[in-house]
Amino acid sequence: MASDVATQKKTKGQQTILQHERHSLLKFVYSFEDAKTGSKQLLGGKGAGLAEMTKIGLPVPPGFTVTTEACHYFCENNDYPKGFWAEFDEHLAALEKKMQKEFGSKTNPLLVSVRSGAAISMPGMMDTVLNLGLNDETVEGLITQTNNPRFCWDAYRRFIQMFGDVVLGIDHEKFESTLELEKIKSRVQLDTDLSIKNLQNIVSGYKKIILKETGKNFPKEPRTQLKLAVEAVFRSWNNERAIAYRRINKITGLLGTAVNIQSMAFGNMGEDSGTGVAFTRNPSTGNKEFYGEFLINAQGEDVVAGIRTPQKIEALKQLMPKVYNQLLQIQNKLERHYKNMQDIEFTIEKGRLFILQTRNGKRTAQAAIKIATDMVKEKMISQKDALLQVDPNQLDQLLHPQIKSTFHSKAIAQGLPASPGAAVGKVVFTAEDAVEWSERGEKVILVRKETSPEDIEGMHTAQGILTSMGGMTSHAAVVCRGMGKPCVAGCASIEVDAKKRIVKIGNRTIKEGEIITLNGSTGEVFKDAAPLELPKMSALFVEFMKWADKYRTMQVRTNADTPTDAKRAREFGAEGIGLCRTEHMFFEEDRIISMREMILASSEAGRRKALAKLLPFQRKDFAAIFNAMSGYPVTIRLLDPPLHEFLPTTKKQVAELATLMKLSPKKIIDAAERLHEINPMLGHRGCRLGITYPEIYEMQTRAIVEAGIAATKKGTKVIAEIEIPLVGSASELEKMRRLVEKVISEYHGKITFKIKIGTMIELPRACLTADEICEHADFFSFGTNDLTQTTFGFSRDDAGKFMQEYLQAGILERDPTESIDRKGVGELMKLCIRLARSKKTDFEMGICGEHGGEPKSVEFCHEIGLNYVSCSPFRLPIARLAAAQAALR
Amino acid sequence: MASDVATQKKTKGQQTILQHERHSLLKFVYSFEDAKTGSKQLLGGKGAGLAEMTKIGLPVPPGFTVTTEACHYFCENNDYPKGFWAEFDEHLAALEKKMQKEFGSKTNPLLVSVRSGAAISMPGMMDTVLNLGLNDETVEGLITQTNNPRFCWDAYRRFIQMFGDVVLGIDHEKFESTLELEKIKSRVQLDTDLSIKNLQNIVSGYKKIILKETGKNFPKEPRTQLKLAVEAVFRSWNNERAIAYRRINKITGLLGTAVNIQSMAFGNMGEDSGTGVAFTRNPSTGNKEFYGEFLINAQGEDVVAGIRTPQKIEALKQLMPKVYNQLLQIQNKLERHYKNMQDIEFTIEKGRLFILQTRNGKRTAQAAIKIATDMVKEKMISQKDALLQVDPNQLDQLLHPQIKSTFHSKAIAQGLPASPGAAVGKVVFTAEDAVEWSERGEKVILVRKETSPEDIEGMHTAQGILTSMGGMTSHAAVVCRGMGKPCVAGCASIEVDAKKRIVKIGNRTIKEGEIITLNGSTGEVFKDAAPLELPKMSALFVEFMKWADKYRTMQVRTNADTPTDAKRAREFGAEGIGLCRTEHMFFEEDRIISMREMILASSEAGRRKALAKLLPFQRKDFAAIFNAMSGYPVTIRLLDPPLHEFLPTTKKQVAELATLMKLSPKKIIDAAERLHEINPMLGHRGCRLGITYPEIYEMQTRAIVEAGIAATKKGTKVIAEIEIPLVGSASELEKMRRLVEKVISEYHGKITFKIKIGTMIELPRACLTADEICEHADFFSFGTNDLTQTTFGFSRDDAGKFMQEYLQAGILERDPTESIDRKGVGELMKLCIRLARSKKTDFEMGICGEHGGEPKSVEFCHEIGLNYVSCSPFRLPIARLAAAQAALR
Repeated sequence: MASDVATQKKTKGQQTILQHERHSLLKFVYSFEDAKTGSKQLLGGKGAGLAEMTKIGLPVPPGFTVTTEACHYFCENNDYPKGFWAEFDEHLAALEKKMQKEFGSKTNPLLVSVRSGAAISMPGMMDTVLNLGLNDETVEGLITQTNNPRFCWDAYRRFIQMFGDVVLGIDHEKFESTLELEKIKSRVQLDTDLSIKNLQNIVSGYKKIILKETGKNFPKEPRTQLKLAVEAVFRSWNNERAIAYRRINKITGLLGTAVNIQSMAFGNMGEDSGTGVAFTRNPSTGNKEFYGEFLINAQGEDVVAGIRTPQKIEALKQLMPKVYNQLLQIQNKLERHYKNMQDIEFTIEKGRLFILQTRNGKRTAQAAIKIATDMVKEKMISQKDALLQVDPNQLDQLLHPQIKSTFHSKAIAQGLPASPGAAVGKVVFTAEDAVEWSERGEKVILVRKETSPEDIEGMHTAQGILTSMGGMTSHAAVVCRGMGKPCVAGCASIEVDAKKRIVKIGNRTIKEGEIITLNGSTGEVFKDAAPLELPKMSALFVEFMKWADKYRTMQVRTNADTPTDAKRAREFGAEGIGLCRTEHMFFEEDRIISMREMILASSEAGRRKALAKLLPFQRKDFAAIFNAMSGYPVTIRLLDPPLHEFLPTTKKQVAELATLMKLSPKKIIDAAERLHEINPMLGHRGCRLGITYPEIYEMQTRAIVEAGIAATKKGTKVIAEIEIPLVGSASELEKMRRLVEKVISEYHGKITFKIKIGTMIELPRACLTADEICEHADFFSFGTNDLTQTTFGFSRDDAGKFMQEYLQAGILERDPTESIDRKGVGELMKLCIRLARSKKTDFEMGICGEHGGEPKSVEFCHEIGLNYVSCSPFRLPIARLAAAQAALR
Repeated sequence: MASDVATQKKTKGQQTILQHERHSLLKFVYSFEDAKTGSKQLLGGKGAGLAEMTKIGLPVPPGFTVTTEACHYFCENNDYPKGFWAEFDEHLAALEKKMQKEFGSKTNPLLVSVRSGAAISMPGMMDTVLNLGLNDETVEGLITQTNNPRFCWDAYRRFIQMFGDVVLGIDHEKFESTLELEKIKSRVQLDTDLSIKNLQNIVSGYKKIILKETGKNFPKEPRTQLKLAVEAVFRSWNNERAIAYRRINKITGLLGTAVNIQSMAFGNMGEDSGTGVAFTRNPSTGNKEFYGEFLINAQGEDVVAGIRTPQKIEALKQLMPKVYNQLLQIQNKLERHYKNMQDIEFTIEKGRLFILQTRNGKRTAQAAIKIATDMVKEKMISQKDALLQVDPNQLDQLLHPQIKSTFHSKAIAQGLPASPGAAVGKVVFTAEDAVEWSERGEKVILVRKETSPEDIEGMHTAQGILTSMGGMTSHAAVVCRGMGKPCVAGCASIEVDAKKRIVKIGNRTIKEGEIITLNGSTGEVFKDAAPLELPKMSALFVEFMKWADKYRTMQVRTNADTPTDAKRAREFGAEGIGLCRTEHMFFEEDRIISMREMILASSEAGRRKALAKLLPFQRKDFAAIFNAMSGYPVTIRLLDPPLHEFLPTTKKQVAELATLMKLSPKKIIDAAERLHEINPMLGHRGCRLGITYPEIYEMQTRAIVEAGIAATKKGTKVIAEIEIPLVGSASELEKMRRLVEKVISEYHGKITFKIKIGTMIELPRACLTADEICEHADFFSFGTNDLTQTTFGFSRDDAGKFMQEYLQAGILERDPTESIDRKGVGELMKLCIRLARSKKTDFEMGICGEHGGEPKSVEFCHEIGLNYVSCSPFRLPIARLAAAQAALR
């Protein structure tokens, strides 16, 4: 009997053949001239930019782009589509013709760069090979072309090193040590001091490394080099770093990376050559100023990697005024063309300017707001465009801590202000340590000579980054600005010794684990922890957020448990409280005792006595919150967590409580054991407490009503929403509503404000029976934290053990606790909305899970018709902008 | 501003008015002659029986029935429907006319009984009042009628006592002590020895009790008495006992109880009077024999309450041959009429027979099978009727333990064989203790003088019941037979002293906590624990189950983890294994060490080494299971529980393991801490283990395949189904399927049996994305245990703290872990089926949660189109019959 497995496989095989046939009709290679504009998805950002710039007449070295579809096919099938290489060769031949050079020629060779480029920019993530096409013979041809043998041998040396590292996967340290050895042998300091002979020695050393490491000779044949390079780029799409970057930045839905094959322009042909990176506006402040850096006599990778500290772009004005002016015109043209701030890479080959890349520039949140609002004022874009131009995720940078203005202390070092904001943490020296220390709850500052794409996870987890090398456009600087993480880069006065785990600053030595403070806005480094404070919102930001408020249709509320939070949230634009968790109020010292007394009471009467002591506290808190939110709704959730969470855990606490309550410690321990739960997340909590101990919810309702009455008397406009948590069936809510209504009715005639009674929707069963539940509710609020956990059947506390692996293996596209899982949780939400509104057409529904401040989730909430999102105060601007973008899209 | 609450209330008020108007059109009272037959829902079982018997000409004392709708209205509104009492009075007047007596007359008074009666019989649950209409004046009228003053004062005395207890809620102990006091004062032993004067003293004492306890005089006015009695019956519908009975017996969907008002027939008018209970067939064995008991000179309640030990019905043949013959004819007529075994209540008043009630008789499972199959043989009913006549829940009694036939020991006491089966447990004396001891895991035998409805929970939780008083139709006997719980009743040789917590048997004293054994099939009581064994299935049972198999359309599989269980399950009719949990195989002594070694290994290599040691064990187990299930599918679930479940917990175990593995105990404790989970039910388990440690599933797949190959070689017909647990997204299953297929492909050419790969559906998200998941599955099996817990968001381990309260308060109709929650979990299942079959039309789906052996859930599974149910071996007959009934309905 045949097994089913075999049958299944045959079907899969057949599918593959069909796919193959479909793909053979597609075009996989486009020259820069032919490519349609704007097709980033197909050509990647870099390819689309090169095509666009070619089209508008900018000096771009000719070349062609292999599409992302080719990459996708390759990744799926581990092979190229039919006819791919024929199409590729046609384009290579056309390029040879255009350049009047020949790929692999011994006399007039064409050299190319091979660069990756996905639709979304991933700095440093993808691998690049320059000078491709060189071998022992073509290097002679290059000498014939350039009359510069030293340059040629250096180019050859660089090519083998890059090819060995990127394409063949050999540790670059191996090449570096050969280089260093040659320097030591020849007693020279700088790479530029190496002689032709030295370089030739290095080349032959490099070839030996390749033979040793791969068991094969360095591929001399340029066509083989090119094929291997294209394949390496394709494979790099799924390397760990690339996957990690996409995960961290929540990039999904891309087909793969494109590959750009471009004729080489050389920035390292002498003092009249150079290479640089520039922004059309200041990416840190957003000011309208041409901003950039360059290195004379260098290849592009030297700038980005931050190995040599470059010069400011202004210096170019002095050195090559003509080139500078040309660059100024080009940057202006590019910005007007793209209607967005551009990040440009250029190379000057013997006084001739080439543009190698343009893309929307990464920027700080502050810069993003400044640029967007300025461009509106310049009438370059509309308000709507401006709103869509800013990434909502960035905005919380603006609310991030700064060093208190009252703090005056001497910095121990000064570097470049590479990414704004302040950070305090313990010094660590490797990305791995940063991850490990953070996992055990430490706040760390990652200190490195320079950072590289391998460090991405460590950078993500650190509070801030300090590097001794690299400029404003170094890897560390670019990545940190993107992450909204403080960074001080190029801090030349420090000496990092990662092996000994120390950093020296003059005579001072700072060891691993010592605390430092970074000010990424000024480039200062301080010893010990400086006091931090929250920034004030700029007028521009306030204006920008007003535009967002004008266009959005969803309300934005906040999750706030204290009057202080409520006040701050109002400043950040909250239109009410979507979730006020009452349990936090019980943890304060003067309350926890009464709470514990209540829990340990053996009768309802005992519980009521203890609750009576808690009532005044709750009443006072609620009144202050109503006051802070005057005129706006305040949703107060009645007690939710299981009671054991309030009991003491340490021996000392138990002893103290025992003395205070005149009980034996054993009695307290027994009570804790009795209340212990195997799965507290699925335990005796939420309205289950209200049902078994109605006196708790009764007291809380009383506190809310009395607070409302008191606040109203003082002129506050109270809108109270009483929320019953963890409802799974209509009968629970019916019973709890009756309880709450009974208490309210005792205040008949005294209540002159609005009170609604509703429930949190946080269980699958609540969604499935929403038509019944809504009959007893005035509103629903999705508690997507718990809803996600129950729908997936994992607890956020325990999922850490497998979640990383799930994301890395692509089993989940995103962590569903961060961004709403549309297929599962989202479907339940839609079902819930449909059922509820089938009974009550305009039924009010919102979301108060942490997803309420995550842009993609906010967009989803808009799509499915929620009335509001509610999020933590600091995420309010994000939610407001995301809601506006959702409405505009 | 008006509050929303007020608005809500108004709407509710309006609804009530509408309801009221609708109800005023209904008829709420039916005389026995007028009532339509078969309307149990409206008239209750008792009312419908009285009407039916009246119709077919049996001697029923005239009367009328107040409908369940009236009760429902009363319970909802705490008031009677409009016009109710007018309608009631008409019927009372008609009854007076028919009986030629007058309610409340001083000369010729009509006395009535007031009895409750819901559509489903609830023995002892509802309250009854006899002799209603008596007061100081009407008692004189009764004396005029009967010329028997002693009887009349005794009737009056009984009436006040019953009325005080049932209607006014006064503790019956209070009345009993007045009675006892009078006996002591007069130095008489028996109630029957009391003089008229004594009875008059008691009556006036009773009246004082009523005044003292209620603050009001005993209601003299018969109409007031009647109104209060009707109301008391209505209210008793929602008393705790009634709610508990409905919950335990899973009775839902009833409107309320009916009230029967019937003219009195007196069984206590002398030696030519009596009252009794009889069954048309033996309710214990099912044998076709007239079976019953009676008491001379007694009222009905005396028999049911089991206070006096009654005579066997055969004795009546001697005492009143005419009456006996009449009764014999009537019982025959009733059984032929109802086509079911009848339970009849009768009263003989001065040699005249009255039938007071008939209903389908409760019976043991053995009797149910015997009666159903006999009736088919007698051509009274069809096979289909027979199948529908037996309650599937009862069947597991037939598989319940008996005392081993090899056991020969002298019984310490002999009682009546009131409910068959054997039970071993520790003696407790109160229902409360039974509940408490059981909760802490003790098995108990509840020993009582007699049981009463208050004891219902304790009886439910005990292993068996032993009473010193009461007969085969006493409360204890009837309830136990219904529960399928062993009971020895009327064990006169024992003396129960509940206060001292001892029971005396001759010179022997057994204290609380000592172990005894009951044989409910013989009435024997043994000291200490007798060895128990499982019964063999009778030929009749086997035949009956064959009928069931003929009509059912769903397959019935079993959940079995061992070859022994698999073999037993085949005997009980399993058509395959629906769930074989592989983890149980790891707990055996010779395996747990390797399992722990695997868990503690720090590398994949270490894990593989340990797994290699486990492989032979698993292979052997699987081969034996395949063998036991030759020709039937075996679904094997790969490892599911979180790894920490396998680690040692006690210090001793840790030390042992440390020595064995040459590790420090600390290392083991650290590992356990690292693996500790806050919510293990939502933790790192199921396919999450397979994804992070693929080597585990790899080994298990290998074991399954190799076991299959080995078993096939020995002639076993293997059908293997590999099941991936806890899948929440298609990508998980896709990845795990690939892993399993890869292992299978290594045995290419050697596999000649069928292997399917599928998944358990136990998470809401799996249901929501079933269309995607099924693309990678050959079958689905609903794991409704976990699906219920995640859908409701409670853990079965922790729900105990509130579940009882939820059921008592009616928030949940049934415990959803026992019977599938159709509204929530059921909707998810339906969605899952719809999505999966939209992709694969005939997709195979079953259920392996514990619901698979619960009749209502089995019915639901049939309705929604599952291919099979799978349950524990002992529940197979239940599932088979329930599946047949579902197909027949």
